[in-house]
Amino acid sequence: MMKPATERLRIGVVGLGRLGKRHAENLAYRVRGATLAAACSPLEAELAWARDALPEPRLYADYADLLADPQLDAVWLVTPSSLHAQQIVDALRAGKHVFCEKPLSLDVAECERVLAEAVRYPHLQATIGFMRRFDPSYRDAFDKIAAGQIGRPFLVRSQTTDKNDNDGFFVRFAATSGGIFLDCTVHDIDVARWLLGKPRATRVFAAGTIALHEGLREFGDVDNGVAICEFEGGKLAMFYASRTQAHGNDTHSEVVGTAGALTIGRNPRANRVEIYDATGIRNECTPNFFDRFEDAFLHEARAFVASVQNAPGKGDAAQSGATLADALEATRIGVALRESLQSGEAVTL
Amino acid sequence: MMKPATERLRIGVVGLGRLGKRHAENLAYRVRGATLAAACSPLEAELAWARDALPEPRLYADYADLLADPQLDAVWLVTPSSLHAQQIVDALRAGKHVFCEKPLSLDVAECERVLAEAVRYPHLQATIGFMRRFDPSYRDAFDKIAAGQIGRPFLVRSQTTDKNDNDGFFVRFAATSGGIFLDCTVHDIDVARWLLGKPRATRVFAAGTIALHEGLREFGDVDNGVAICEFEGGKLAMFYASRTQAHGNDTHSEVVGTAGALTIGRNPRANRVEIYDATGIRNECTPNFFDRFEDAFLHEARAFVASVQNAPGKGDAAQSGATLADALEATRIGVALRESLQSGEAVTL
Amino acid sequence: MMKPATERLRIGVVGLGRLGKRHAENLAYRVRGATLAAACSPLEAELAWARDALPEPRLYADYADLLADPQLDAVWLVTPSSLHAQQIVDALRAGKHVFCEKPLSLDVAECERVLAEAVRYPHLQATIGFMRRFDPSYRDAFDKIAAGQIGRPFLVRSQTTDKNDNDGFFVRFAATSGGIFLDCTVHDIDVARWLLGKPRATRVFAAGTIALHEGLREFGDVDNGVAICEFEGGKLAMFYASRTQAHGNDTHSEVVGTAGALTIGRNPRANRVEIYDATGIRNECTPNFFDRFEDAFLHEARAFVASVQNAPGKGDAAQSGATLADALEATRIGVALRESLQSGEAVTL
Amino acid sequence: MMKPATERLRIGVVGLGRLGKRHAENLAYRVRGATLAAACSPLEAELAWARDALPEPRLYADYADLLADPQLDAVWLVTPSSLHAQQIVDALRAGKHVFCEKPLSLDVAECERVLAEAVRYPHLQATIGFMRRFDPSYRDAFDKIAAGQIGRPFLVRSQTTDKNDNDGFFVRFAATSGGIFLDCTVHDIDVARWLLGKPRATRVFAAGTIALHEGLREFGDVDNGVAICEFEGGKLAMFYASRTQAHGNDTHSEVVGTAGALTIGRNPRANRVEIYDATGIRNECTPNFFDRFEDAFLHEARAFVASVQNAPGKGDAAQSGATLADALEATRIGVALRESLQSGEAVTL
Repeated sequence: MMKPATERLRIGVVGLGRLGKRHAENLAYRVRGATLAAACSPLEAELAWARDALPEPRLYADYADLLADPQLDAVWLVTPSSLHAQQIVDALRAGKHVFCEKPLSLDVAECERVLAEAVRYPHLQATIGFMRRFDPSYRDAFDKIAAGQIGRPFLVRSQTTDKNDNDGFFVRFAATSGGIFLDCTVHDIDVARWLLGKPRATRVFAAGTIALHEGLREFGDVDNGVAICEFEGGKLAMFYASRTQAHGNDTHSEVVGTAGALTIGRNPRANRVEIYDATGIRNECTPNFFDRFEDAFLHEARAFVASVQNAPGKGDAAQSGATLADALEATRIGVALRESLQSGEAVTL
Repeated sequence: MMKPATERLRIGVVGLGRLGKRHAENLAYRVRGATLAAACSPLEAELAWARDALPEPRLYADYADLLADPQLDAVWLVTPSSLHAQQIVDALRAGKHVFCEKPLSLDVAECERVLAEAVRYPHLQATIGFMRRFDPSYRDAFDKIAAGQIGRPFLVRSQTTDKNDNDGFFVRFAATSGGIFLDCTVHDIDVARWLLGKPRATRVFAAGTIALHEGLREFGDVDNGVAICEFEGGKLAMFYASRTQAHGNDTHSEVVGTAGALTIGRNPRANRVEIYDATGIRNECTPNFFDRFEDAFLHEARAFVASVQNAPGKGDAAQSGATLADALEATRIGVALRESLQSGEAVTL
Repeated sequence: MMKPATERLRIGVVGLGRLGKRHAENLAYRVRGATLAAACSPLEAELAWARDALPEPRLYADYADLLADPQLDAVWLVTPSSLHAQQIVDALRAGKHVFCEKPLSLDVAECERVLAEAVRYPHLQATIGFMRRFDPSYRDAFDKIAAGQIGRPFLVRSQTTDKNDNDGFFVRFAATSGGIFLDCTVHDIDVARWLLGKPRATRVFAAGTIALHEGLREFGDVDNGVAICEFEGGKLAMFYASRTQAHGNDTHSEVVGTAGALTIGRNPRANRVEIYDATGIRNECTPNFFDRFEDAFLHEARAFVASVQNAPGKGDAAQSGATLADALEATRIGVALRESLQSGEAVTL
Repeated sequence: MMKPATERLRIGVVGLGRLGKRHAENLAYRVRGATLAAACSPLEAELAWARDALPEPRLYADYADLLADPQLDAVWLVTPSSLHAQQIVDALRAGKHVFCEKPLSLDVAECERVLAEAVRYPHLQATIGFMRRFDPSYRDAFDKIAAGQIGRPFLVRSQTTDKNDNDGFFVRFAATSGGIFLDCTVHDIDVARWLLGKPRATRVFAAGTIALHEGLREFGDVDNGVAICEFEGGKLAMFYASRTQAHGNDTHSEVVGTAGALTIGRNPRANRVEIYDATGIRNECTPNFFDRFEDAFLHEARAFVASVQNAPGKGDAAQSGATLADALEATRIGVALRESLQSGEAVTL
């Protein structure tokens, strides 16, 4: 049932790149309790898109002006990672709930500063966009585990592997990406913590190699990385990240419990078609995360809006998305993985 | 890019049952070139839903009043099957494009009367909602065939099988459903014609059995039916329809060509989760057509609107959906299957 | 446990072509209760092979001489189809148990003559080699059905489809093969009867097309055929046979029951390898029936020997393989399918 | 083609437990170039079995007596692990080729002593039974890699996981098994080295947990273990071993290369049957390694015999099985994994 306009959450989206446009459209048209009331971008072309494609949001070129808009309840940050931390703090100070794309920050200390500030605004919700939690298949797995279907879960194996990009975008991006573990594996870290009941990580080890992209070497980065993460209570995770897959974006996870196991996405099928020809029987694969997680971005937005509306004043406690604390842990573990990769030693957390 | 409101196709939806609501929401929020301008239902509860859930459509209790609305370009019929034929004719006479849920009619002569009338309105488009054509996987298969990936297609095997419903809704529905072939297989017939290049059917044979639902016997219906359809040019189709599957709604199709084959939906996976336990490794299955084809209904609506807007005045020639002529053929073949089931003889068309 | 030589079944194999060699080796080395005591072939090269590869069997160039060997308990016929019927009769008259490769005969009357003769030798066992019954997966399905896992089985869908052979061996073979239904579908017919509890067939309909091999036309044969078979008690079967598959030999079957269904070999995987590359994820397929059913031929031989030894004097009643009566029914149905293909009419049995 | 008896390799099998019996039967009946000429066991029951089931081998209760048999070319050791090293040395000193079940030894120094001795017998072949190399699917993957189908392989992920055994045989076995990595992962180590071109391992890290079997704690062992192994040249391996799977023995491996990847056994299907019921669509799983690798044991025996016969005097250089050097490396890496598990530190090799 659609809410009357006066009861809807009024949201301003900030950043209108490819992913920002998707979020904006979802919020404008597909999230019942929300109104996309404003949009912000420093780029005129993006604002022009907003004028055409969105239902008359107020447009801002400057984030501070958007924050000053008294007709906004929440901001939706789809901005460069390096801006996230300060923009979140600014939003909270302006009295806005905040959704921010991952990562919170690549720097643990900066993450901690945001958390220290956020604690002053317990009535506001702040969520970091680990969208995988809202993919229907990941959600189904989570629910099955919660229902006890695999007994006690104790091991997660999870991977984020991209189709090889000969253009090497991520090589040029390597200086600021934080490296493969902070850029890719951070999703698997969040998945592992989420599916294992948020245990505390105690030790990690990582290794990696450059299979194809020698340009990464100067940044201390790799195009294929593997890692083990030990958690308290005898829980474990194994991670694999790659930039060089031939078959597509292959994001999948497995949870092993004492009475069974679940896999999510083990064959990254593009769709329901199978092709029979002289090479055998095959399915094509999801080309990239953007297509793979199309539904997840939508469900994530709906969940954020619902949790703000259904549990006003409860802040993070009400939400199913990743809290700032979750995001801090993901960064903390990701940084430790990078440190282990570089030192060759296990890193104790 | 969103169209200015003045260029959008103004649509009135007629019938607001479960499927009507879905169509209405798609048209209201997810089809860029469309405005859901009106809605019609004889039931006050459905109109109340429309007031809440839709963006202020004009509401009508009577179909004639909706047709008289000059601010409508098209009508969208999600009404009982027995009304379709006359409502389509009325819409065309009122100068409206028309989308109508399948079937056109269960009666061949009635189908032919609608076609005879429609030929007088060549500038109006009339589409019957065989939504399977718009499922992304079926569409991918169609495109691969068109690109020659399996050589010349000559055989389709296709099935529509429902999860067993102990409540026996379809038993009560048997008096008016037209029987299993006209109710279920009609989709497979359309798929076969569509994937094989619309060849003319020449002969059919059908057989069936009652596996569980004895109540069907008085209607001459069965709960499991099989059929063969021969087309001109040596093309063939095999069909299976069932009301009694244990595992879910299992709608799948296969196309065999001279250089390969394609299957669509061979394993009707509910999602990307696999469950490992003492019984083996399994996936759950799609529970019903409504969930299975959620995307298809949306793409179908987008395609209708796009074809009206991009090819004004070209009528059926412009469309990717099923034309009235396609719907007539589906009914003609379905009726022949029923006749064969009852006579035990092959039926020549 | 190996039997003392004196208790073993002494077998003479007749025909040492590719399949005959396989049977001979299985009987010689892998069937505990058997001794391969003799071999017969009119070809010196095949006898030379026997001298090298087998453990000193007595060798015969002439079948009559082998039948006269008093030190033989059973004969194993792997000879041209046209010889089967008379050779079986001769074996029974000579007091030998007999295993014979399928088919019993392509002619119903000839099948009936063999049965009429066999009834005079109730203490001798005669089995026709429908090896699919002994494939471990088909056997597992049979056992699960017998245990009630799918409720009451009422529909079998089964196919025998070969990888396309551009050399067209089967075209040259068309004059004597009996056509695609008697050559290929006969296996599916036996599978359907076996899995459905041996119901009596009541009516069939068949259709077919020539997709690639025009040379078949003069023989009234097709390279792709489809069929429906109705059995008493509301049981049904659908068959598909093809000579033109691109991906391999794809022999698979499905059994639908009132509480579930089973498929056997739905993806004809060559082995356990999956290949991930730019075309997607794929498995290679079984190239031909000879490789696909390697195990089945062995288990078939073991079952024959065990049934003769464990149930002496009980004749066909003791066996798990196809009896002469089963083989007669398979031929009767196959002939009816061919007749339907040619007449375009349903054929009542 | 069968070899004349005088040219066959005369083999004596030592140890006639469950696996010994399988080896003995394979050698006796299914390996063309071999004669099972002798068998040795200290247990009268096992010798009685040999008298019944094998073709008249000479029987010995004492290994020294068997070694003294001048009519033997090779010995086949299926004895307790702790005896392997000395028995291999004794066999070589007696001038016999030797096949020995894995492991060579759980102790690196002892492995090295065997290698030091073996170097004195370059004309004799010594193979350790890592049978996974001879599984047809693993072999197919190896051949595809050798043919360049996945580019340069750089990462192996491999697991050996057993169905949970509530009886806890492996708990009682823990005192002498060497722990989960030396008992189970040693197979994956050999697979990784074999598929990656035998690179030298440089560093390992391992972690583990007790999910169910607390009795392992006193032995410093775990029932689930994970590990990373780095090799020279930027090659990597990840391992998983488990004693507690619900679904079956799930032995599978993946090889990632610069142009594609291969998986072997990703779904450990028991056979070709799929079951459709109210829980979804499922396949049953291989129950244990003994069934899973039935074919591998046979091919392993054939390969050993062929390599001795085809390349006399070339010793290890001729063989496709694991050499003593391979076995030493597997033990060296396995011991390092155990050390890492216990210390929590990465171990440099």
